[in-house]
Amino acid sequence: MTTLLLKNVVYQNRITDVLIRDKHFDMIQPNISLNTDVRMDCKGLKAILPAFYNGHTHAAMNLLRGYADDLPLFEWLNKYIWPMEARLSAEDIYIGAKLACLEMIRSGCVFFNDMYWHYSQSNRAAVEMGMRICNGPLILDAYNPSFQSEQELLINRFIDAISTFPETVIPSLCPHSVYSVLPETLKKISKIAEDKNMFVHIHLSETTQEVADCIKTHGCSPVAYLDSLGLLSPKTIAAHGIHLKAEDRDILSQRGVILVHMPVSNMKLSNGSFDVPAAQNAGIKIILGTDGASSNNSLDMIREMKFASLLSKHSSRKTTTLPAQEVFQYATLNSARTFGIHAGIIEPGYLADCILVNLKDVHLVPGYNLISDMVYSADSSCIDSVICNGRFLMKNGVIKEEDKIIEEAVGCGERLRSLEVETFMSAFDGTST
Amino acid sequence: MTTLLLKNVVYQNRITDVLIRDKHFDMIQPNISLNTDVRMDCKGLKAILPAFYNGHTHAAMNLLRGYADDLPLFEWLNKYIWPMEARLSAEDIYIGAKLACLEMIRSGCVFFNDMYWHYSQSNRAAVEMGMRICNGPLILDAYNPSFQSEQELLINRFIDAISTFPETVIPSLCPHSVYSVLPETLKKISKIAEDKNMFVHIHLSETTQEVADCIKTHGCSPVAYLDSLGLLSPKTIAAHGIHLKAEDRDILSQRGVILVHMPVSNMKLSNGSFDVPAAQNAGIKIILGTDGASSNNSLDMIREMKFASLLSKHSSRKTTTLPAQEVFQYATLNSARTFGIHAGIIEPGYLADCILVNLKDVHLVPGYNLISDMVYSADSSCIDSVICNGRFLMKNGVIKEEDKIIEEAVGCGERLRSLEVETFMSAFDGTST
Repeated sequence: MTTLLLKNVVYQNRITDVLIRDKHFDMIQPNISLNTDVRMDCKGLKAILPAFYNGHTHAAMNLLRGYADDLPLFEWLNKYIWPMEARLSAEDIYIGAKLACLEMIRSGCVFFNDMYWHYSQSNRAAVEMGMRICNGPLILDAYNPSFQSEQELLINRFIDAISTFPETVIPSLCPHSVYSVLPETLKKISKIAEDKNMFVHIHLSETTQEVADCIKTHGCSPVAYLDSLGLLSPKTIAAHGIHLKAEDRDILSQRGVILVHMPVSNMKLSNGSFDVPAAQNAGIKIILGTDGASSNNSLDMIREMKFASLLSKHSSRKTTTLPAQEVFQYATLNSARTFGIHAGIIEPGYLADCILVNLKDVHLVPGYNLISDMVYSADSSCIDSVICNGRFLMKNGVIKEEDKIIEEAVGCGERLRSLEVETFMSAFDGTST
Repeated sequence: MTTLLLKNVVYQNRITDVLIRDKHFDMIQPNISLNTDVRMDCKGLKAILPAFYNGHTHAAMNLLRGYADDLPLFEWLNKYIWPMEARLSAEDIYIGAKLACLEMIRSGCVFFNDMYWHYSQSNRAAVEMGMRICNGPLILDAYNPSFQSEQELLINRFIDAISTFPETVIPSLCPHSVYSVLPETLKKISKIAEDKNMFVHIHLSETTQEVADCIKTHGCSPVAYLDSLGLLSPKTIAAHGIHLKAEDRDILSQRGVILVHMPVSNMKLSNGSFDVPAAQNAGIKIILGTDGASSNNSLDMIREMKFASLLSKHSSRKTTTLPAQEVFQYATLNSARTFGIHAGIIEPGYLADCILVNLKDVHLVPGYNLISDMVYSADSSCIDSVICNGRFLMKNGVIKEEDKIIEEAVGCGERLRSLEVETFMSAFDGTST
């Protein structure tokens, strides 16, 4: 049991003290005098806010940041992204995920919902950095059905290992998409997820091509198709959901599916824009995510909030669409709730996940409305400290071992670029544990 | 004459030394050993890049940041922005402009093209902070023609004062827009600008309402109308230019007008999106700007580049539109050239305007392509130092008097909010000198 006392912190526009006991907020009131294990005097200059929860990313892809941009989609994937991914070892994925954790912590994020090969490496990175993660085996067998038995083995080993996971690691199954996973595999995943009450994390209706192909192959939209396989539930996290018809929205709403909106990725890949008001009107739950660094190219939830609000205003032609308070909630409370994390609100009894922002940071001045300033003006430079599960991940701008993580990522990038290009499929070597 | 030596700086992917003599880059080569007035060893960890030039803003509006967001346009202007602006004294405008300069320097910007009342206060702020500025009297008489004689006096006094301006202050005349300035005033401005070879800075075709009203009142588009008054030339800086027809683009191209693209403001105010490829195809010169803090809400050219590139990709449905290198050039070289500043390229003979970025900043790692990383990944936290006209504006993250500027802006914001709301028009008290 450790205790952490934040003295003179700005909380809801007044100065008070915040006591964290072990993993939870314990007391919020002025003049708490206690000898605690850790203590920080914020001197009325730092405000406490909920931390961010990244609804969808591919953390290890931070290693590919800036490697290939501004290219036609097919050339981008075939000539650059896939060959580069084929070169990634388990250790590379660990190094890339650490780099991603570093970037997320710097921008106030304490959780990410990941999808990538070698999920255990991302878990290792998240645990070492003190972050929460939702993750599990990536299932991708439509291109090579011979992997089916290996994937089943992988899933079984994963399920056996769940009981050994720390509480900050939330298990999920990650079928990649309707076009890259076989129907019988999707059905199996649906069954396991239901039996084990586990999250299912999948890409959904990201491109017009995906929708057209699904209609051609399965006779219905990706949403209706997944529904017919029993895969849609309140534990289904669907990434993108750009190209939806009214019927699709009704299904998603009825099944309680959570949609992850990623405006930056959608814009950079020219995939169209998710219709926020239509999804809201249909009663669909929405959270925010950054996607991976190849299509963003950063994992910054602060910037993502600004893009989300502005893209929605732009698309709906209304200045009132997706206001700051609402998009902030998508990135914090709604996302935490989605993953069953009792956080996103700074109140006694909630898990002690939070950020401290420097109120003298130029982006937060003069300071009429902190949430507006966080969404429309701030960048990562205003984040002073980050706390997850009652522990500092960043304290006064310092993250443990930052230099080492940066050095390893730079070295890894140099090595990867120098390697011969191999084929995409060699990445499927069955060692994703 | 001062000399400044940057040792071991990363320049175009190699480590070298850069000597600045007085205001210009003097030598770029390894192993320069000279006793200089100022010296910084970058140890191969910082890269030198061109600085940013903000094509259009209202600097003092930083005082209004976060004061009112997410409202319908009319309510936003009438209930919040205009009454608040009516409370601003000349001193407030100075304080707001200083805050804006601070924010711009922190994000690597050394110049802004301003438009606001009390232009001399923004000039004072820019000069004190070591930034370049293009600025001049704001002309806005259509709502109250009795100001005409005062405005003429204001312009005459301004013209008399130009010879006393420091070289970093570039004079301009700022008729607000086609709808807020009388035709005879626009004609006069056109004549003076031609006689004095002066920049004219105006809002143009920002909203569909503006275009419709102009057609109704003057029988033609805002572009054709301004052209008929002789106001369009290679020294005309037109802000926005969202709603243009092919004929308008041809006129702008033929006259050599420079269009300032401001994607964040356009999206936040739901004004539509500037068609970058169409303007490029017509041969129009394009630069980037942030607009003021009420409609952005930050003055960060790094974020503006990402928004510009991604909005263009989104609107054109092409991943190849407005690539990183091109949008970076809009924000640096093209903008500097527009205002006759011999900068934007790091080479001997050019003015010594530049930034130093921290290559170990998490956003720039692994580091395959620095320009891609600056556009798509970086935020202000990567900017280590900023140099303008051969002088450090920020050195190792430190800006002179930052605390004082922040404190004054916070105090000013508190005072403004507590004041009684006055009427918008009281701002026109004829003291704008």
